Amino acid sequence: MKLDGKHMRTIWVGEDGWSVEIIDQTKLPHVFETTPLRSVDDAARAIRDMLVRGAPLIGGTAAYGICLALRGDPSDENLEAASRQLNATRPTAVNLKWALDEMTHAVRNLPREDRVAAAYARAAEICDDDAECCRMIGVHGLEIMKEHGKRKMDEPVNVLTHCNAGSLATIDWGTATSPVYHAHEAGVPVHVWVDETRPRNQGAALTAYELGHHGVPHTIIADNAGGHLMQRGQVDLCIVGTDRTAANGDVANKIGTYLKALAAHDNDVPFYVALPHSTIDWSLDDGFEIPIEERGAEEVTQMTGRLADGAVVTVDIAAPGSPAGNPAFDVTPARLVSGLITERGICRASAEGLLELYPERAGDEA
Amino acid sequence: MKLDGKHMRTIWVGEDGWSVEIIDQTKLPHVFETTPLRSVDDAARAIRDMLVRGAPLIGGTAAYGICLALRGDPSDENLEAASRQLNATRPTAVNLKWALDEMTHAVRNLPREDRVAAAYARAAEICDDDAECCRMIGVHGLEIMKEHGKRKMDEPVNVLTHCNAGSLATIDWGTATSPVYHAHEAGVPVHVWVDETRPRNQGAALTAYELGHHGVPHTIIADNAGGHLMQRGQVDLCIVGTDRTAANGDVANKIGTYLKALAAHDNDVPFYVALPHSTIDWSLDDGFEIPIEERGAEEVTQMTGRLADGAVVTVDIAAPGSPAGNPAFDVTPARLVSGLITERGICRASAEGLLELYPERAGDEA
Repeated sequence: MKLDGKHMRTIWVGEDGWSVEIIDQTKLPHVFETTPLRSVDDAARAIRDMLVRGAPLIGGTAAYGICLALRGDPSDENLEAASRQLNATRPTAVNLKWALDEMTHAVRNLPREDRVAAAYARAAEICDDDAECCRMIGVHGLEIMKEHGKRKMDEPVNVLTHCNAGSLATIDWGTATSPVYHAHEAGVPVHVWVDETRPRNQGAALTAYELGHHGVPHTIIADNAGGHLMQRGQVDLCIVGTDRTAANGDVANKIGTYLKALAAHDNDVPFYVALPHSTIDWSLDDGFEIPIEERGAEEVTQMTGRLADGAVVTVDIAAPGSPAGNPAFDVTPARLVSGLITERGICRASAEGLLELYPERAGDEA
Repeated sequence: MKLDGKHMRTIWVGEDGWSVEIIDQTKLPHVFETTPLRSVDDAARAIRDMLVRGAPLIGGTAAYGICLALRGDPSDENLEAASRQLNATRPTAVNLKWALDEMTHAVRNLPREDRVAAAYARAAEICDDDAECCRMIGVHGLEIMKEHGKRKMDEPVNVLTHCNAGSLATIDWGTATSPVYHAHEAGVPVHVWVDETRPRNQGAALTAYELGHHGVPHTIIADNAGGHLMQRGQVDLCIVGTDRTAANGDVANKIGTYLKALAAHDNDVPFYVALPHSTIDWSLDDGFEIPIEERGAEEVTQMTGRLADGAVVTVDIAAPGSPAGNPAFDVTPARLVSGLITERGICRASAEGLLELYPERAGDEA
């Protein structure tokens, strides 16, 4: 990720060699601020309160959360308790459980005195692996971008994306944004329609922020606008991320993704979902089994922004006393997905498609 | 419309007998404030800056705008100039042109000295007619609500609506809300999912406000959430309004309506559009010919709300420097519409359906 011209990741070990630094994403785009995590409680809070968000980054943070827990107490009991605590923070993204299982697997057969070092090593690997997966998603996605680029001649390829499946949602590169960044670097003209993504505005606040820092042309739109733009031929393809992909290719992603997939389908606009292997839940043969998080009403009825003097304030925007509902994800059925872009290549959104790329998983699926 | 237990309309002639009073809807739901219109410029500004909005209320305000213009100068030239000025305020709602044509027709053959009185009389008729049309939309729509009510036993009928097609968008009753109010009064349990309706939040700000004052149970949701709720069987039917309906049954309505119609279609949820005759543009045989207003980027990048101390402020919510696009309407093709609820009854969304209700229009359509 490029910020103010410098390359950085979203999570790293601090100069003290053990605390974990993150960007507090609840403060973006108004204030850029990093904050240290020094305990498993800090890590759990960072995930639950969405200082970090995005399935891959949630996984990376949970991995380091285990490291922080084991520093205090490397016992089996504490490993289990920390894993349980972190796993309970958010229900939908499967990378969380995946990373916790990986961490447990990496340390449980080691003597206690070796566990902390092994945990930090495995957490670093998980993060490096995610960054590399996201880079490869971009390498494969670039081919799609080039195809569209050829058809558009010198016109920019118009990509619509929903929420932030960008560098900020991962360790680096992003999932949905990686093909965009690769295209931009390869000289394929690209323009991104950024869905605002209510209620937390991850599009307007985070995706627009990182695209701006990378110099990628983009336009923020209300979540309501994408269908209209597709009807008018102003979207060449959609690329989104996913918080959990079932073995049949159904994808849970930020609430509203399903609506965009319907519009893409209705207008023959290709609809791609970009994901690393860690987002696939091989135990689910149907996306409608994925638990959908219900979040607080205040995310809908309030909004945080900058006053003209730069002060950041939260305001009530809805009719006083009106209740609000806030489901955070929806499930897009595989039939609406043109393809899955993974670190191993692009496949159809189906059990067969996924098993062609991950043949070692044959038999794992439900 | 009931506000604080009192019945009121959205537009009326002031106590002086000539100025026109409106509710400044840009201040809702934070502050309830009426404001007088004393000139055609005031009326044009009220429409353009959306102190009044909603196709029928725009029509009523334009009618009174002609009255105010003629008070100063009842000449043909001024009648034409005022009509042109008002017609240029907003491009999508056809009620604007319809009302202006009605007003011109009402006064142009009269001597100048009789024009002002005739204009006020016709404007009052236009408003009374709209209120009666909206009441009848509710009478017909109530039958649909009762049918769903029977199936739901004692459970509330869950209606999803988008934007504000309520009393505040009309003279009284609303279009989409009229069946809801009639059901509520008839003792049919009803609950409304209120789409927030970004970027101007007419759902969270206006629909929730008026449903609350009427005591109708409702829940505000992000525009992204409706598809998910339909997938989970939590929506029994959708009812929305329209700013212009083509002769083939295609409907232009607030941006995002098309996405909800797609989701309703995908989940076998009935999708109704409620409208008075004045919203039908018989000259257009295809909704995609309807001009779509592009509004300012600041509606997307800024938000107005209440601080804890009650002060109303506007904040920047998006990444600094990021551009935004703001198409204000989209077109829902007739194939996605289950039926049109009009003052004359309910018909299929098709040329044939509309002509069954409006046989006198045979030959008028394009």
